[in-house]
Amino acid sequence: MNETNNIILPEPTLRRLPWYLAYIDILKNQGVKTVSSTRIAKAINVDASLIAKDLSFLNIRGKTRIGYEVARLAEVLADFLGFKRSHKAVVVGVGSLGAALIHDTGLANYGLEIVAGFDTSQELIGTKIRGINIYDMKDFGRIRELTDASIGILTVPFTSAQDAADTMVASGIKAIWNFTPCRVRTSEGIVMTSTSIYAHLALIYNRLGNEML
Amino acid sequence: MNETNNIILPEPTLRRLPWYLAYIDILKNQGVKTVSSTRIAKAINVDASLIAKDLSFLNIRGKTRIGYEVARLAEVLADFLGFKRSHKAVVVGVGSLGAALIHDTGLANYGLEIVAGFDTSQELIGTKIRGINIYDMKDFGRIRELTDASIGILTVPFTSAQDAADTMVASGIKAIWNFTPCRVRTSEGIVMTSTSIYAHLALIYNRLGNEML
Repeated sequence: MNETNNIILPEPTLRRLPWYLAYIDILKNQGVKTVSSTRIAKAINVDASLIAKDLSFLNIRGKTRIGYEVARLAEVLADFLGFKRSHKAVVVGVGSLGAALIHDTGLANYGLEIVAGFDTSQELIGTKIRGINIYDMKDFGRIRELTDASIGILTVPFTSAQDAADTMVASGIKAIWNFTPCRVRTSEGIVMTSTSIYAHLALIYNRLGNEML
Repeated sequence: MNETNNIILPEPTLRRLPWYLAYIDILKNQGVKTVSSTRIAKAINVDASLIAKDLSFLNIRGKTRIGYEVARLAEVLADFLGFKRSHKAVVVGVGSLGAALIHDTGLANYGLEIVAGFDTSQELIGTKIRGINIYDMKDFGRIRELTDASIGILTVPFTSAQDAADTMVASGIKAIWNFTPCRVRTSEGIVMTSTSIYAHLALIYNRLGNEML
């Protein structure tokens, strides 16, 4: 574990830090050595004072008139965000989206190590995706303990979302990443975050409909 | 086009409406005939008055002491959110995540019709995923026009995100769904929405780190 563990970062900061990292990684690729918060601010359209405040959570200091060392900032940011450590996760619901997430090797670059998939369909149970076993949902508790995964990715059909989440939490999952359109409820102390694909689609369609008038 | 086109809905409403739809669809599957906003409120933990306000945007009225007709509400909601019409989209960047999104047939159930993929890798150009052609990014303008797609899904490596977005907009894309960790800038009038997978991961890791203390 590292120094991030005793700082609960505000959500807006956690949303912005990956932007900075993406930009710093671009600079690093281009061979740029140092960067000021003013330059970061200009490139990604966030106030320089806000960037300085966000970066003050990190164990790094910029130098006056020079700024931050690019390679070091990239490393510290990625480490601070937890992207350099491996976090074990399971995928619950290996339908179209669940399978797609297991296929997405890019997530591993951000520290997400998918160790197992679960489904209730007999056709899927016992198969593998990218070498990862798909188990019967009935065996969730046993496999969860065996793999020691703490993150559960929820990609079941919406009708099973709450039941699946309950099983996950009862079996020791500590964080649920919800990809279903459902508002899943869990007990306190469980980390819950939703990626609302459907809300994003609804937003695009609504705004596009109006643009087209 | 339908009645939603001249209402720019607030983002929080667009975030909540898919929750209602998911819950109503569950009730429909269970054979439930009518539902009150109080019952929806209890199930998904949103204030009943807020639900009534959100639903007031729709062309549907609940009846006193009976509530809404479930089947009709499901239909009106899905239609209102644009999930029942087909919206043509292209995927720009057919790496791990881009390919995964093309594989995800579930998006079609929410009105997203992916008609083409684009990449710069010679190994990918000319191949097909789920019957969908992967084209050379050089041909973006021509294929965009041919397919008449208005939505561009951005899944390129972060170093190419801004360039790819610029090409998309210059060639007539009206909405960008950004899956890169970059803050992409576009001209006014372009609909821009980001699914920040990396920010969600950062949030999970940060909160988990603290839970584990």
